[in-house]
Parts: sequence; C-alpha cells; structure tokens
Amino acid sequence: MSKMTENGMMSRAKVLTIDTINPTVKKVEYAVRGPIVQRAVELERELSQGMKKPFAEVIKANIGDAHAMGQQPITFFRQDAKSRACRILQSCGGHSMGAYSASQGIDSVREDVARYIERRDGGVPCDPDDIYLTTGASDGIVTMLKLLVCGEGASRTGVMISIPQYPLYSAALAELGAVQINYYLNEEKCWSLDIPELQRALDEARQYCNPRALCIINPGNPTGQVQSRKCIEDVIQFAAKERLFLMADEVYQDNVYADGCQFHSFKKVLFEMGPEYSDTVELASFHSTSKCYMGECGFRGGYMELINMDDEVKAQLTKLVSVRLCPPVPGQALMDLVVNPPQPGEPSYDNFIKERTATLSALAEKAKLTEQVLNTVQGISCNPVQGAMYSFPRITIPEKAVKEATEKGQQPDMFYCMKMLEETGICLVPGSGFGQKDGTYHFRMTILPPSDKLKILLDKVKEFHQKFTQQYS
Amino acid sequence: MSKMTENGMMSRAKVLTIDTINPTVKKVEYAVRGPIVQRAVELERELSQGMKKPFAEVIKANIGDAHAMGQQPITFFRQDAKSRACRILQSCGGHSMGAYSASQGIDSVREDVARYIERRDGGVPCDPDDIYLTTGASDGIVTMLKLLVCGEGASRTGVMISIPQYPLYSAALAELGAVQINYYLNEEKCWSLDIPELQRALDEARQYCNPRALCIINPGNPTGQVQSRKCIEDVIQFAAKERLFLMADEVYQDNVYADGCQFHSFKKVLFEMGPEYSDTVELASFHSTSKCYMGECGFRGGYMELINMDDEVKAQLTKLVSVRLCPPVPGQALMDLVVNPPQPGEPSYDNFIKERTATLSALAEKAKLTEQVLNTVQGISCNPVQGAMYSFPRITIPEKAVKEATEKGQQPDMFYCMKMLEETGICLVPGSGFGQKDGTYHFRMTILPPSDKLKILLDKVKEFHQKFTQQYS
Repeated sequence: MSKMTENGMMSRAKVLTIDTINPTVKKVEYAVRGPIVQRAVELERELSQGMKKPFAEVIKANIGDAHAMGQQPITFFRQDAKSRACRILQSCGGHSMGAYSASQGIDSVREDVARYIERRDGGVPCDPDDIYLTTGASDGIVTMLKLLVCGEGASRTGVMISIPQYPLYSAALAELGAVQINYYLNEEKCWSLDIPELQRALDEARQYCNPRALCIINPGNPTGQVQSRKCIEDVIQFAAKERLFLMADEVYQDNVYADGCQFHSFKKVLFEMGPEYSDTVELASFHSTSKCYMGECGFRGGYMELINMDDEVKAQLTKLVSVRLCPPVPGQALMDLVVNPPQPGEPSYDNFIKERTATLSALAEKAKLTEQVLNTVQGISCNPVQGAMYSFPRITIPEKAVKEATEKGQQPDMFYCMKMLEETGICLVPGSGFGQKDGTYHFRMTILPPSDKLKILLDKVKEFHQKFTQQYS
Repeated sequence: MSKMTENGMMSRAKVLTIDTINPTVKKVEYAVRGPIVQRAVELERELSQGMKKPFAEVIKANIGDAHAMGQQPITFFRQDAKSRACRILQSCGGHSMGAYSASQGIDSVREDVARYIERRDGGVPCDPDDIYLTTGASDGIVTMLKLLVCGEGASRTGVMISIPQYPLYSAALAELGAVQINYYLNEEKCWSLDIPELQRALDEARQYCNPRALCIINPGNPTGQVQSRKCIEDVIQFAAKERLFLMADEVYQDNVYADGCQFHSFKKVLFEMGPEYSDTVELASFHSTSKCYMGECGFRGGYMELINMDDEVKAQLTKLVSVRLCPPVPGQALMDLVVNPPQPGEPSYDNFIKERTATLSALAEKAKLTEQVLNTVQGISCNPVQGAMYSFPRITIPEKAVKEATEKGQQPDMFYCMKMLEETGICLVPGSGFGQKDGTYHFRMTILPPSDKLKILLDKVKEFHQKFTQQYS
C-alpha cells in the first residue's frame, strides 16, 4: 500500500481512485454538461485571454438557461412582490429567509401551489399535504426514483423512460443501480408516444427486471412535442393495466407554441377518467421555477404533487427529505410568486401580463423560426417545436465522418458538435447524450437566444453543416 | 394484483408500498426532525386553534436554526452588500441570479472562498479548483460519501463516525448501504476523541467491512467539544497510517467559546505536518452559511475543499454534481459574502464587526449559562459547551421510567423528551437519535434562544426533570 519514492519519502496510494470509486457513479452520464460544455468553458477562457478563434464569442445553446441567454427576468419576480414577500416571511421561522423551513416546504407556499393546481386543472381538488417543495424539479424526480428502487437480479426495479430522454433520468437510474427501460418516441410522427411501443418495451423488460414506473416528459425534452389529451389517457390506461407508477415531468407546462396544441396535465386527465383510475393510479407530477416564462433556474425552486401515494410511503418520503433539512427558502419564495401571480387590479398585473405574453410570444416565434431555417438545410430535418425550449433535429453525418469519429472513439454526433464548437463557438448537445435510434444522429439546441442572435446562430449552423458535409463527402 | 371492492370497482394494489419501497430508505433515521418535532408542529397547530395546553408556546430547541430563534440576520448579508452583489452578478449568466451557474459553483465565489481559507490558515495555499460550492454542507458530505461507497459483503465500504454523531452521517450511510463504524467520544474527558478508541473501532470493523473514511465533526455536534491541535495531528497520523480518507465537518469553525480553546482547521494542521502528510493524506473539509454568526440556514449555501484528491476522481465528482445543474445561486452569493466580509475602511465594516461580535459573545454567554444551570440539577450532568451551538447533557432516567418507555417500544430518552414537550412545550432531541453508550441517556438542546428566553427554558427543563424524577422514583 505504500512505497518509497526516490527521495526516500513514503508515498501512499490514494484511498479514492478511479478504480475504487463507487461504480454506480462511474456509470452516470449527463451530456447537457458533458465534454462539449467543458470545452466551451475552456474556449471562453481562451477568448478572454486574447487567443485568436474563428469566432468572437461562445454561444451556449446547450441548456435551457433563459436569463443567461438574455431573457429579462419577469419584473414581478424581482421587484414588485413586496406584499407577497411579507406573507411568505410571516411563514418563515423568525420571519427570516435565513431560517430553515419545514422539510416538505413552507405551509403557505404549499397552499398556494395547491390552489394554482386547482385553477390549472379546472377545479380538480388538490391537497397541500400532497405537495412537496423541492430543489428544482431534478431533486423531486431523483427522490421519487429513490423510493421506487429495490430488488436484485431479475427483480431489480426497472423504470421506463422515453428515448430521446432528458439525461437526468438515465443518470439517476445509473446512480441508483436501477434498470433503465427504453421506449422510443416516433420521430416520423412528430415524436409521438405510441402505446404498442410502450408495450413492446415493457414486455421485453419483464424478462430481466421488475418494471415499476413509467416516466413521461410533456411537453417533451429534448424533443419538443406536446402530447394530446387522447395520448395521455392511453398512457394512464396503460399504467393502470400494467400497474406502473406514473411520473409526469411537466416543467414546460406553460411552454406550448404550436397551433392546435394545448397542455393537459396528467392529473386533470386522470381525474376526468373517473374513480376507477383517479382512485388508484399512483402519479407524481413535477414542476419548477426554471422553465416556462420564468426561467429562474438559479433559484432551484420546484414542487412535486403526489396522487394516490400510500400513506406509509409518504411518511418515509417526509423522513427522507428531512435529512437535507429543507429546499432553499429563496427558491420556495419564488415558487410561491410563480403560482400566485398578480391578479387583475393589483399594481403589477398589467406589466406582468405584458412581460409574460411577450416572453411566451417570442419563444413561439423562435420555435417556428428554428424549425423553418433548419429544414432549409439539406441533411437536417427538424420536427415542429410544439413546446418546451429545444429543437432536436436529425442530422445526416457522412460515412467518412462517422468513420473518423469511430476511430477517435467518439460518437459521430459528439464529433460533429465538437467540430461545430471549435469552428463557430456554438455549443450544442449531441443527440447521443439523450439516446436515439441506432444509426440516427441529432443535436439539441435551445431556442432561447434573442431573435436576432438566434437568426445568426441558425445561419452559422447551416453554414457549418454544409461545410462539414462537403468536407466529409 | 387487483380485487373487486364492495361497490364492484376494481381496486389495484399500490405499486409503491411500505413493503416494496427501497429498503435503504426505510433504514434512514434523522432524529433532529423526527417524531418529537412532528409532535411539536402538531402542538403549535393545536395552540393556534385555541386548544388549552400547560404552556403558551412551543420552543424548538431541537435544531441550530438561529434566525428562527430570534437571532437577527447580520445586516451586511442583507442590506449593505451592494458592491459585492454587483460583482457576483457580473459572474452570473445574463448577470442574473436566475441563471444556472457552473456546476462546481461560480468561479469568482470559489476564488473568494480560496482566499478566505488562505487567510484563515495563515497563508497555506488554496486552489479555487479544489473548491466545490454545495447546497448546504449536507449536500457536500453526502456527495463525498457517495463517491467512497463500493464493494459487497466483507469488502463493503465502512465509514467511521463519532458517537454521538450528527445523524446526517448515519442517514446517508444507511441510504448508500455503507457500513457505519462507530467510535465513541469520551464523555468523561469532555467528549474528547481518543486514538486508542479509533484503533479499537477500526480493528473490529476490518473483520466485516473495508473501512475507507474517517469523519470528524469539529467543533462537535451534538457534543460541543473543540479539538486541540495535538488531537487533530494524532487523527491525521492515524488516517495516514491506516489509509483513511478524512472528512472534516468544520461548519462551526467560528463558534468557539471556551477559554483556551481555539479552532484549528484540519488543512492547516495537515500542512504544518510537512509533505509526508500534506502531499498524501486525502481530506475533504466542509463549511456552510448556516452556522457560526451567520445562521443563514434557509439559503442552503456551503462549500467543500478537497485536498489531495485524485484527478480522475475529481472529474467524476464534477460530472456527478453537474447532474443537479448547480447549487442555489442565492446561497452561492451568500457564501461569497461570508468569505468576503467588509474590510476596515468600508462603510459596513464597523457595524458588521459590532454585530458579529455581539452575536458570538451572546452565544459564548449562553453556552456558559446552559452548562451552569443544567449542572445545578440533580440527575443532569453537562460537559462545557466549548463550541458549536448545542449542549448534550447526560440525564439520569429512573428505572421505572425506563420500564414504561420499553413497554411502549420507545427509547427512554425519547419517552423523556416527548413528556417534556407535552408538559412544557420545549422541543429537544433525544440522545438516542445521535447515538450514545448503552445505558446512558442524553438530550440535545440548542443554546440559540435569546438569553432571557434561554433562562426561562433552562428553568423549565430543571423543573420538568425534578418532577419527572419524582414521578418515576
């Protein structure tokens, strides 16, 4: 364990090395902040040190980080919320944001969340006791998965996730040592979720694990589709029939742009299906302050609502979250402002509506623009961005480039995105980080940059793709 | 799996029940927010509904929650920090707290933390790349433990923790399925850490697991001792000899009250021991915005510094923390203010020093008062509260009470604390939640209440203990 070095000192092998680290940690992958982003940060540093690059700035289109992309914070959340702030502070220990809150979250915030959900779902009742405030939606999702994981070998918990998926899911499942069950979204039908594909994935998985949960992201990340009411009903029926715990990631619930599309919450549809379903199907729904028109990612605010959860399990959950004491109180306060926005007659109302409408309209335009421009490029085809904050176009990568990537031990779309970053300063996430059908390649690009910047960005992507295709043909 | 109910509807067994939940979750225990605190919350509700109780208010002396206890936030952290706030915002994406930061934390904050550590440790160098900002110290501690856990059966990772301990450690180890190795602090010698006891615990544990890490809390929680420089040196030597990863929980580094006591950071001592140690011993040190004179718990700010960590492991760590995107940005900003306080000549300096000194002096007085009053009670003996924020007195519980508790399936000190809560409204945490030598009983009480309230509280504790002892004698 120790050896003498040249100068006669004892050198001890490290306790913690890559060979002795928790093996589940090694399996974790999270492409949204992977090697491409690390290189982008280096490039920014190099630029700031005066190194010459073929571009003047790095554009981080890899992540749904609205404020970093220049979206102005909604004024209400930052300045106009004094009377609400007083009410929130009244609920804080010592009337200070610096005090711990209840582990489940501040009571009055959970009450406001419950009323928000009731309004959103046309009166379907919501019990504040079913609301848990979280550190962003990610925290809630990981916590729920943690509860679900058990068993060994063929009875190990399996969790169904869409492919493409948001890599928080695969990362959490890897860390928990659970079995990831892939069901593929149908790219040809605008990334729709088809029940026969769910059934196929489930039936195959039952041979080697114990499938217990089905995760849905609606509106979709990275794929931007918005599920129809019919589709949600079918999914709920499927979950009921197959006895699966439903996890509905609904953080983009305000981000719906396409004509004819509408956000339907899983909870509302569940309750409209009658007591056969609404009394039995277990559902967790997740929301966040980070997305929608707010984009307040840095505050790490969020909540989850739990429907039909067993009481003893809920007690275990409450105990589990208490170990981390409480979600950040500023994030809880911000969540409260989100679910309790200005009402007609209140001083901030007009400005709030103006800013919210402007933000969402701009996103809708940018969604359309992105789809249109990308579809003019030969070798790129992009589904409509019906909702959320990303386009996920399919790209054709020439054989020669695939070969060169493979020789380098890289995924072809990683190779493509790394080259784009080096040549244009544009930071995207390769489709391989989200999962995709074998032999297909994609990238995820956020639609968040301001319109003028987005146009330039899309032109650069177009130009790069053409050059890349030529170079490798 | 399904059965017909009386009204003919199909009833499905739940997917997630107490029998099918993740078994590691069931093992998690966290007494600081356990049944006593749940009952305290109920009692508060009952009081507010006008129910008659033998007390007018519930005093939550269970947790180190300074602001909730009436400690005024330090003005600088809330009002006077404009120029620093501008600098922090300059480092934020889109100059907004609402943007995600780097997963490791904002660069400029990590630089300020590094300079703070250098000042604290008399010039021992600190590299900002070794600093990871965290969501409170708890987050960093759990993340480090996660990296360390591997192996099965007799090669499963074991982690040494003090008994009594802060139950975050036992909870995290239970959840990770690691082996908890208890070493006992010496109550007779003011909760000192004795090396022979470390050796005993380690030697025994080597028979059934693979001990890889040693956790130290200094100043101690719940025990309030402050380790001497000599003791820290001995611990480092022990860790080096036995090849253990050192985890130093130093969140109370400003909370030292007793004459002759001084805080020594593990890092400083390590570097003073020369390169044989400073080049090899792996150390993680944790700090937080929640304790010391700040008491800003609700912001969930913190950092960890990693010494001699393997580079590949660091890359894994960076990847792992990126899955949660970033620690809350308001907490990062507050951490920056803590490590970068007003300097002589700056407008806030005088007031900051006044407030900080007043807060720490008041704590020192309350530490002394608590020890003195508790030691006047027959059947209670309390070590000096040298540091941190709690007293952890030993209590004598009469045989008859032990018997009644056992019949109820309760730990005797849980029985004692629950009775105290019901009769006096005082919420303490039973010693059994922290671990203690068999047959001994304790409780943890924070010294945070304002002096006048603390006196009343201590008198009530005294009175209760006398009554309880009489009742069960």
